[in-house]
Amino acid sequence: MVFQALDILGTIAFAISGVMTALNKRLDPFGIFIIAFVTAVGGGTLRDVLIGQTPVSWMEDLTVVYVISASVIFAVLLRKKLSYLSKSLFLFDTIGLGVFTLIGIEKGIASGLSPIISIALGAMTGTFGGVIRDILCNEIPVIFRKEVYAMACVAGGFSFFLLKELPIAENLVYILTALIVITIRILAVIFHLQLPSFYRNTQNKS
Amino acid sequence: MVFQALDILGTIAFAISGVMTALNKRLDPFGIFIIAFVTAVGGGTLRDVLIGQTPVSWMEDLTVVYVISASVIFAVLLRKKLSYLSKSLFLFDTIGLGVFTLIGIEKGIASGLSPIISIALGAMTGTFGGVIRDILCNEIPVIFRKEVYAMACVAGGFSFFLLKELPIAENLVYILTALIVITIRILAVIFHLQLPSFYRNTQNKS
Amino acid sequence: MVFQALDILGTIAFAISGVMTALNKRLDPFGIFIIAFVTAVGGGTLRDVLIGQTPVSWMEDLTVVYVISASVIFAVLLRKKLSYLSKSLFLFDTIGLGVFTLIGIEKGIASGLSPIISIALGAMTGTFGGVIRDILCNEIPVIFRKEVYAMACVAGGFSFFLLKELPIAENLVYILTALIVITIRILAVIFHLQLPSFYRNTQNKS
Repeated sequence: MVFQALDILGTIAFAISGVMTALNKRLDPFGIFIIAFVTAVGGGTLRDVLIGQTPVSWMEDLTVVYVISASVIFAVLLRKKLSYLSKSLFLFDTIGLGVFTLIGIEKGIASGLSPIISIALGAMTGTFGGVIRDILCNEIPVIFRKEVYAMACVAGGFSFFLLKELPIAENLVYILTALIVITIRILAVIFHLQLPSFYRNTQNKS
Repeated sequence: MVFQALDILGTIAFAISGVMTALNKRLDPFGIFIIAFVTAVGGGTLRDVLIGQTPVSWMEDLTVVYVISASVIFAVLLRKKLSYLSKSLFLFDTIGLGVFTLIGIEKGIASGLSPIISIALGAMTGTFGGVIRDILCNEIPVIFRKEVYAMACVAGGFSFFLLKELPIAENLVYILTALIVITIRILAVIFHLQLPSFYRNTQNKS
Repeated sequence: MVFQALDILGTIAFAISGVMTALNKRLDPFGIFIIAFVTAVGGGTLRDVLIGQTPVSWMEDLTVVYVISASVIFAVLLRKKLSYLSKSLFLFDTIGLGVFTLIGIEKGIASGLSPIISIALGAMTGTFGGVIRDILCNEIPVIFRKEVYAMACVAGGFSFFLLKELPIAENLVYILTALIVITIRILAVIFHLQLPSFYRNTQNKS
């Protein structure tokens, strides 16, 4: 299925972003693997724990474990060349964001939860891997400070429930939702969009 | 029910304390909302996860989501005036502590857990929202350093199980327990009470 | 049972390591207790939550609560003498690592999970108490930076599944696995073994 393939692209991108953060913090190989793993599966794991779907999903399907392991080995070996891949990685990461958001929303609906909570679960699936990564690396999570990252998930989530009301095929709803998340994220990065700041004299563009 | 109204007062106070911490850390609007949300529901969420009561409670009753959202908007708009409200906020926070402790104890008993564990769940419900808030903001949790906060919950918890042995109405047990937590907390703040320190030359009154 | 006795030795050592970290951070008595508790039971608690075995185990068997409480009182009273005990504490800690790893592996198997996930659960049980301790104390977890700690668990885990294939008694498999974890850990400390580093000019021996 196309979504599963895209899910794997996202997992790869998230794991590599974990490796890069861990290398930056000069962690040892074990630390690098854990940070990569947590970045890739942390959001979905937190979601599964909060809705009570245990054992959490990566325990019952080892694909994701293998994908992350391979991504870590690849990223560590090519660590000096990763900057050449930054555009591809950004694209993978953004596709992952869209697909993870959809998976979270779906799980919420399947658990009989309300649209608002399902949207929250979508955003959590997309973004909390990065939050846990930053906490383990002793940083204030970057998405709390200067990214439109999470807002793209939330906007996508609302669009999902609006699109579902339209007389269009279900698959189209999924594709459009993912595209909305991806488009907002890309536009935000291109145009340096940020959420409005409440602080004066703030210069926090990255 | 009066307890539910008090529960909401506590939720408001906890959410606002989250907003204030987040503003202090110069987080963006998304970060502010997440910190407020986690401060208000984090203790109860951790409790629910540890005892296996999932989906966690705020997923099935949106009242708390709306209360927190309104509190965040209110606190952000009035952020320069919040200091005028510090006494009311302290009172709400303290009422919240008492009520959250009771809710935690009750859930422990309802899950068939022992009094000691139920008391621990009461203290967790009252205090771990603040612990998670501080971790997300990259601080050592303040209640581990200089507050009689958690001890008020623990003392209230022991009182609860002692009072239950007395021939008094159940409602009275609840009210007295909450009052004990609230009184200890207020006295501790008025008289600058702290737990004994094991360190010399320590000057850590806030 | 001998394993339960060893489990308690490990709990004592982990709790005392928590007390020492907390004293170092100048936490108050409540903070010290929480850090000790989390260090001792955090790994097993995370494991239980992720596999859905709730209420988590320390809620239903208070032995561990009493053992930790006694360890905290002992360690705080003797805090100036603990350095004389450092060798015993290291031994207890290492025995705990071996036993906790076994318990985690067993729980994974009992939950019908694959060998790889069971090994991960063993390592998580042995090491994540320390990870949570470090996060609560606002440090990057030490096992991500310079310890062969987790690798000893992983090596023990693989040995366990290899030994199980041999025609030897089940008890012997358990004892050998624990001994492998313990031996690797002791050798690593004696010979200052570390995982290979990816960084130049790094001097991070403790």
